[in-house]
Amino acid sequence: TVQDVRGDGNRVDGNCGGESSKESSRCSTPVLDADRSDRLRDKMLRRMESGDRWFSLEFFPPRTASGAVNLISRFDRMGSGGPLFIDITWHPAGDPGSDKETSSMMIASTAVNYCGLETILHLTCCNQTKEKITGYLAKAKHLGLKNIMALRGDPVGADWEEEEGGFNYATDLVKHIRSEFDDYFDICVAGYPTGHPEAESYEEDLRHLKEKVDAGADFIITQLFFRAETFLKFVRDCRKIGIMCPILPGIFPIQGYQSLRQLVKLSKLEVPEEITRVIEPIKDNDAAIRNYGIEQAVEMCRLLLESGEVPGLHFYTLNREVATIEVLRQLGMWIEDPRRPLPWAMSAHPKRKVEDVRPIFWASRPKSYIYRTQDWDDFPNGRWGNSSSPAFGELNDYYLFYLKSKSSKDALLKMWGEELTSEDSVFEVFTCYITAQPNHSGHKVMCLPWNDEPLAPETNLLKDELEKVNRRGVLTINSQPNINGKPSSDPLVGWGPAGGYVFQKAYLEFFTSSENVNALLKVLKKYEPRVNYHIVNVQGHNLTNAPEMQPNAVTWGIFPGREIVQPTVVDPVSFMYWKDEAFALWIEQWAKLYEDESPSRMIIKYIHDNYFLVNLVDNDFPLENCLWQVIDDMFEFLTSNFEIIAAETNTVVP
Amino acid sequence: TVQDVRGDGNRVDGNCGGESSKESSRCSTPVLDADRSDRLRDKMLRRMESGDRWFSLEFFPPRTASGAVNLISRFDRMGSGGPLFIDITWHPAGDPGSDKETSSMMIASTAVNYCGLETILHLTCCNQTKEKITGYLAKAKHLGLKNIMALRGDPVGADWEEEEGGFNYATDLVKHIRSEFDDYFDICVAGYPTGHPEAESYEEDLRHLKEKVDAGADFIITQLFFRAETFLKFVRDCRKIGIMCPILPGIFPIQGYQSLRQLVKLSKLEVPEEITRVIEPIKDNDAAIRNYGIEQAVEMCRLLLESGEVPGLHFYTLNREVATIEVLRQLGMWIEDPRRPLPWAMSAHPKRKVEDVRPIFWASRPKSYIYRTQDWDDFPNGRWGNSSSPAFGELNDYYLFYLKSKSSKDALLKMWGEELTSEDSVFEVFTCYITAQPNHSGHKVMCLPWNDEPLAPETNLLKDELEKVNRRGVLTINSQPNINGKPSSDPLVGWGPAGGYVFQKAYLEFFTSSENVNALLKVLKKYEPRVNYHIVNVQGHNLTNAPEMQPNAVTWGIFPGREIVQPTVVDPVSFMYWKDEAFALWIEQWAKLYEDESPSRMIIKYIHDNYFLVNLVDNDFPLENCLWQVIDDMFEFLTSNFEIIAAETNTVVP
Repeated sequence: TVQDVRGDGNRVDGNCGGESSKESSRCSTPVLDADRSDRLRDKMLRRMESGDRWFSLEFFPPRTASGAVNLISRFDRMGSGGPLFIDITWHPAGDPGSDKETSSMMIASTAVNYCGLETILHLTCCNQTKEKITGYLAKAKHLGLKNIMALRGDPVGADWEEEEGGFNYATDLVKHIRSEFDDYFDICVAGYPTGHPEAESYEEDLRHLKEKVDAGADFIITQLFFRAETFLKFVRDCRKIGIMCPILPGIFPIQGYQSLRQLVKLSKLEVPEEITRVIEPIKDNDAAIRNYGIEQAVEMCRLLLESGEVPGLHFYTLNREVATIEVLRQLGMWIEDPRRPLPWAMSAHPKRKVEDVRPIFWASRPKSYIYRTQDWDDFPNGRWGNSSSPAFGELNDYYLFYLKSKSSKDALLKMWGEELTSEDSVFEVFTCYITAQPNHSGHKVMCLPWNDEPLAPETNLLKDELEKVNRRGVLTINSQPNINGKPSSDPLVGWGPAGGYVFQKAYLEFFTSSENVNALLKVLKKYEPRVNYHIVNVQGHNLTNAPEMQPNAVTWGIFPGREIVQPTVVDPVSFMYWKDEAFALWIEQWAKLYEDESPSRMIIKYIHDNYFLVNLVDNDFPLENCLWQVIDDMFEFLTSNFEIIAAETNTVVP
Repeated sequence: TVQDVRGDGNRVDGNCGGESSKESSRCSTPVLDADRSDRLRDKMLRRMESGDRWFSLEFFPPRTASGAVNLISRFDRMGSGGPLFIDITWHPAGDPGSDKETSSMMIASTAVNYCGLETILHLTCCNQTKEKITGYLAKAKHLGLKNIMALRGDPVGADWEEEEGGFNYATDLVKHIRSEFDDYFDICVAGYPTGHPEAESYEEDLRHLKEKVDAGADFIITQLFFRAETFLKFVRDCRKIGIMCPILPGIFPIQGYQSLRQLVKLSKLEVPEEITRVIEPIKDNDAAIRNYGIEQAVEMCRLLLESGEVPGLHFYTLNREVATIEVLRQLGMWIEDPRRPLPWAMSAHPKRKVEDVRPIFWASRPKSYIYRTQDWDDFPNGRWGNSSSPAFGELNDYYLFYLKSKSSKDALLKMWGEELTSEDSVFEVFTCYITAQPNHSGHKVMCLPWNDEPLAPETNLLKDELEKVNRRGVLTINSQPNINGKPSSDPLVGWGPAGGYVFQKAYLEFFTSSENVNALLKVLKKYEPRVNYHIVNVQGHNLTNAPEMQPNAVTWGIFPGREIVQPTVVDPVSFMYWKDEAFALWIEQWAKLYEDESPSRMIIKYIHDNYFLVNLVDNDFPLENCLWQVIDDMFEFLTSNFEIIAAETNTVVP
């Protein structure tokens, strides 16, 4: 059960303070309390103390921008299994320290900042100047990276020679990091269970490793190997000469004949006979090889874990998901914990570690929120505060990269309509997204410009009501049901530590016509002070009844032994920033799919120019959500006051 | 109804932002939102806009320390009726700026800081040096006073003459305040509806008043008068010459023949014939005069209010309660609003205006809490935070003044026992306090060292259970029931703005023997993680299961359009400061009633030295409070494990 996974976390022993470290040792993503602020080496120590084994995942940077989009969504998926960290390799030839979306530096930064993953950035020093290396490290630090894998890297060209005072070995890099950045980074170094191919001997290589650790490395990840005993002997030999830090075995599930051959060539390893004997006969059968690779890796990992010498397993994923996840599943280490520390995905940037309040508006676009607030120096903790936050970042081109739809233009056109004939065509798209039914041309609408994923399970609670209102032109882009004290372990709406209770005020956010807004404003008078509203159009004409422009907490949790946590607010000030983004998405993601001046484009443009963005909060969370009644009343009002509305439209709402 | 009093506070008019000023205009004590941070003149303006009339109360400083204790509790009682402000007069002969408990300065400071009342300090300038006056003003500012009534004061001696460059008129003082303290203070000046007795003419006096206002005074309070028309004419005359600020009538309910004569003599006023005609015949009948005074004042106030020219009434109370309260009651202006902005009484010191979280420990001793935190620069807002607050002030002699029991030593001995024979005698005192039944010598126990008032209505909810456990030596000093979402308007447990919901975790705090604590610790293991505990003895030996020594929010409220408010926490760090105070009260307030070395004193001393202070929180607020079951289990354990306990006592708890 979920409860078992994290342990009960409570130990009463008559001593002062504290709880067992187990409580927060399971999740890789930061959680409330300890794990959130600890550095990687401390997390490792805590897990070693509690005997709670972990795994980690290695990726290499992608070649293309669309490869980067895919890799980032792979991070999200593989992150959900609970890795303690991931690492990103460094390829000197590929401009790894640049600002390109595909660089090692940017991919690692994205993993930390946008995917909330503890991340190690590789760094090779061979043929690099100290200034260059220091520049990379400073940039990494600035981006929120806290861990470096210090490597020598392969010499370029055949005639490489040691440079006086330069970086000749990884040890030099470790020393440099410690001398220039003190204890800021956690440093990992590579270990070679069968000795480095260029080392004079296995013993000589062990001594080099000892030097790296003595220079300040915190832990070791080994090169791949094929037999558990190879690794276990290596660990014994390390311990004998006084290398006492954690040593993590590098696991390479064989995923294909060619990739194995290539890797063996690069690493100058010998594949043991018992493996080649199995593989050679099936070398043209990819599926068979992959199955064998999984089986072989699982078996080796079992031996490693049973030895008691292995606190965590490090996987060379080759940027693929299936084999690694399958090995971890079979080992019982792949655990998609449905419990979330907060209702939204946190960033792992150190300066955001205290952040625990966000506006609800970006609920479906957390990466956009992180991007637009990346220059903030302080993040809200406990309270959002009254308009106290600095401005949000501008919408610009770079901004759009991280939020590119995973779907192609072609797929989007199929979902959102090759040709729109009226506003009703748009209503249909929204309705089909809600119902997950195919549209009139037979395509399921899997995403909208404001939601790149299908409807959240929680939103499904509101599905029937949402369908009804979208059909009538109340185009919903965000909503949550009211919750009056469900257990924090609730699989649908729960979050935070065990033993608590979570609450929500009902929320509804939608685009709708100015005619509807006029009727809505009349109707809302009946719902004072129960319903708070903010209504704004693209020009920023803003209508609200928020008391003193204060934020309204709409999600909060009460936990044993803790202060109240209120992770989501409806904030009048940030709503004005969100509306820029929400309106821009009509044009950037939808209108631009069509030819300039085409009727389809004009329809989207008309909506962009004339509709209002509305949010409603029902403050009476213990009662039945009244927001549907508000919408019903609005339509009722429209029906029964048709003439009045027509006359007033241009006076009430300019 | 309560709802009517504050208005609905919501106006939907299609304009951007804000709500009507009515919402927060009723309470004089600071409330959440606007009123809390506004200065007095802004509060007046808001009430004038909303047409919501106010009253204010004038007091003079007491002569004796016990007079000061009484006056301060009068502030608390009269503060509950909702004055917009009070003011404290200044008597140059009485050392008014000193640090004595009876000085004008200290009384005004106490009203602001400890009673949470908006307060005006009078200041007279006649015969004072600029340095002296600046010193008074700087001190007032430092103490949190924000309003000054600028007066000339009476010349000392008959041969007073104008000094060149000195303070000859109140105008000079107003100018001095503005030039030295800019806009920091709100300044009030005196108006004389029939002209100042020393002025050449009524018109001349009006011109002086205009000068005072032009020099920077914010509003005017008039000398007393006996006919509404006197005041109304005065206001008309003021307006004619351009005095546009608020003018508040000074109301003097006639309370006795002598006090009237004395006042008339001092102020050189003439009592109108229609009054003397009534009074003279009944001049020896105090009750009759008082009744007439009330009747006369009510009638005059009605005329004033009906005129539409009077935004608020200022009462010369002569430090008495009955007449003023009766006049206000008859006018419908004395409204004891059962709704509290927060569960505890706030201070009106400007630097505390953001404060909205406190530890629960000082719930019955809010003045002590304010005193012990008076040197803090920042006050917790939204969250208590993790041990982030600076240290609490020391317990010292001065500290004890504000917390002196209102009862005499004699009364205390009657309540708490002339002679104690055993710990059981102490149990009886606690039990009688809870039940409000007389003790064995026939005296009701109206207070305890930790609670100077009878049981709070809220605590009455727990009365039966409290009685049971106190009888058995679980000596409770603080408790609250669990509350799962009652309306914020609930008369017993409600607080905060209308339309919200309040919550509490059950809390129990008590002294008990080390034998009991040993059993309790065994029993508490069964209640993990539901119950959090802190257990400490006078030496500071501390046992707790608080996760990471974090604060635990035990009172919180959810309101329309606002962030979560969590005004009360159980904080492990401040508990250690509270325990010093809680243990000291045994000795300072109880043991010291008895002779040195007397058996009674030794019994209290034994408890002080050997008992533990325990607090328990039941985190599962939606369920039935389990803390009584915990105590039952403790006694059950003691009964069934008598031998084991006896053997362990000295090992488990040192």
